[in-house]
Amino acid sequence: MNSPYPSSLLENAVNEFAGLPGIGRKSALRLVLHLLRLDEERVAGFAGAVMKLKREIKYCSLCHNISDTEVCSICADGGRDGSLICVVENVKEVMAIEKTAQFGGLYHVLGGIISPIDGIGPADLEIASLEKRAGAGGIREVILALSATMEGDTTNFYIYRKLQPLGVKISIIARGVSIGDEIEYADEVTLGRSILNRTPFNESYKLLSK
Amino acid sequence: MNSPYPSSLLENAVNEFAGLPGIGRKSALRLVLHLLRLDEERVAGFAGAVMKLKREIKYCSLCHNISDTEVCSICADGGRDGSLICVVENVKEVMAIEKTAQFGGLYHVLGGIISPIDGIGPADLEIASLEKRAGAGGIREVILALSATMEGDTTNFYIYRKLQPLGVKISIIARGVSIGDEIEYADEVTLGRSILNRTPFNESYKLLSK
Repeated sequence: MNSPYPSSLLENAVNEFAGLPGIGRKSALRLVLHLLRLDEERVAGFAGAVMKLKREIKYCSLCHNISDTEVCSICADGGRDGSLICVVENVKEVMAIEKTAQFGGLYHVLGGIISPIDGIGPADLEIASLEKRAGAGGIREVILALSATMEGDTTNFYIYRKLQPLGVKISIIARGVSIGDEIEYADEVTLGRSILNRTPFNESYKLLSK
Repeated sequence: MNSPYPSSLLENAVNEFAGLPGIGRKSALRLVLHLLRLDEERVAGFAGAVMKLKREIKYCSLCHNISDTEVCSICADGGRDGSLICVVENVKEVMAIEKTAQFGGLYHVLGGIISPIDGIGPADLEIASLEKRAGAGGIREVILALSATMEGDTTNFYIYRKLQPLGVKISIIARGVSIGDEIEYADEVTLGRSILNRTPFNESYKLLSK
């Protein structure tokens, strides 16, 4: 036996799981053996949900977020402020910001950030459609809510350069000491920016208590 | 939006992954978004490998290990000692023992251990077939290699009672201080058993250097 697996079917399934991010071969084997213990209907449900997602998933024609419909439920919600666009990397960030219940505008999902190492350039992202959206009129402000990383900063600057000629207000989410964090342990770059971008006392608490 | 997910297809796929052991909802979302970025052929490969495993998997008619064939490659290997049977819980333990390259006999895979809490009794395991195998003649020794837990001990005693009348030699893998462990940090039950079951000096090193 050259392969440590007693069955090629088992080995194939383990290889598939081990190909997912953050799952090693031991975990993959554990997951596969778990699936093997379920009845066939449950396993078909698992495999079917994955295929159905891939085959039938839609992206909102306005904000490019994952959606079941042509226009997503956020863009279709008349109660939201259509003049405010928050630019995010992916659906995960939309979900995280929605959870805060602090944002009542619409989103624009780039589908990633500029990352030369991963071969992702501006043309691979929904930046042209953002320009078009911001330039179509009726947009008051574009908020950039990308990760505070080198790639996020690069993407921020690129979008800023593209949108600036359109005369729309461009802002960026606050960088600072996380709530609950002790100053002593904050890294110096974050602490420095939190001092530079300090907020009037009353305004800061008004936002928190909202 | 009541659900935090912008799409029910996405939510279903996340639910399926979050139903696997050791995968939380955040990891599940990360895995699903990873699959969504792959092309459809790759995703079909993933779903297909899982379904194929469930539908086509065979169990060896002798040792009950997972197998692609009627008789597994270990049982079919004429070079192995058919008079020696190592009793294990599952395919994972077969793979672990094979990796040590210290065992040249055959296996008997129980498919679990006796666990009243999980509703697993002797009848749910391949114990009757073990009795039949051990009683058929030509078996020199049965080695019990189950986990050193309450459930493992219960199963060991149950099998011992069943096999004893057959006159076959029954042994149990050594419990002791793991190689590389410091005595200071070994738990007292393990340390106690390792003293009770001490091995003649020469014999122990002979085994290690084999």
